[in-house]
Amino acid sequence: MRVLGVDPGLTRCGLGIVDQGAQRKLALVAVDVVRTSPDTDLAVRLFAVQCAVEQWLDDHQPDAVALERVFSQHNVRTVMGTAQVSGVVMAAAAKRGVPVVLHTPSEVKAAVTGNGRADKSQITHMVTRILMLESSPKPADAADALALAICHLWRGPAAARLAAAQKAAGPVRTQWKVPGGRS
Amino acid sequence: MRVLGVDPGLTRCGLGIVDQGAQRKLALVAVDVVRTSPDTDLAVRLFAVQCAVEQWLDDHQPDAVALERVFSQHNVRTVMGTAQVSGVVMAAAAKRGVPVVLHTPSEVKAAVTGNGRADKSQITHMVTRILMLESSPKPADAADALALAICHLWRGPAAARLAAAQKAAGPVRTQWKVPGGRS
Repeated sequence: MRVLGVDPGLTRCGLGIVDQGAQRKLALVAVDVVRTSPDTDLAVRLFAVQCAVEQWLDDHQPDAVALERVFSQHNVRTVMGTAQVSGVVMAAAAKRGVPVVLHTPSEVKAAVTGNGRADKSQITHMVTRILMLESSPKPADAADALALAICHLWRGPAAARLAAAQKAAGPVRTQWKVPGGRS
Repeated sequence: MRVLGVDPGLTRCGLGIVDQGAQRKLALVAVDVVRTSPDTDLAVRLFAVQCAVEQWLDDHQPDAVALERVFSQHNVRTVMGTAQVSGVVMAAAAKRGVPVVLHTPSEVKAAVTGNGRADKSQITHMVTRILMLESSPKPADAADALALAICHLWRGPAAARLAAAQKAAGPVRTQWKVPGGRS
């Protein structure tokens, strides 16, 4: 199984491809960071990220995309850009029929370090060890993208069993309602 | 000049095309609302909106896209979906070289009703009058999309003067870089 991990961002968007082969062994396939300048028009920046993500989807043909779930507690301006990038990434994957799974930052940290509140250096350290790399992926966004892919591959079997159990239990009401106005 | 107004939303995304012709007369070209079900996978919903917006851009060839600026003060869940849709819309316009201009809800309300805090019924009323429609565009998202297009056409000359002044003030760095990296 091959997973594209995406750490969404406008200034730096981390992309990492990890393969899981025999004996569940993980291997790095590709890692990079797409950069766009804050001086550039916002729409053009989003299109640049879209082009890069579409290229990676076409070049590497992943089975799934693991994307960081965006929360809006943090810096408002950053969060809006991150949400816009995540929208572009999700649409690009759906266009190719590649499923997108969202993972929260704490799920990713817990999966790769065992600690949901691990710091960036711990993530980078563990990603380097898990993928048996000779040097640490840099910048942190690149390591985060690989951590997302690893998290997805390791959580995958459990998530698949949960989905199967839910399916066996009968239909689940999945509708959510946004009070007052549009969504 | 032809403008595509977009009121971004996941459940309902308003799209409206308005032309400005001789004597600055405005005319409705097309209006519709793209709907996606909350039961559908988020990535698939975003792709559905992307398809619709790309179709409208190709069919109607607007000179500009007027998009509502998203704020994150409101309901968190709604705002994230709206930001994701706006990202998809911006990338689709940039792909075609169509400039995107963001207008705040109060700018739009002020432009079409003279009151930055006008309610939805006032917006619908004024859009119907300005475009000399026989009946009101419904739902409100359709009227909002047309109001965005009207706002852009009416604010356009002032915005164009501002852009010209900025241009005269010196070059803006617009380059973005996608590093080759390992792949």
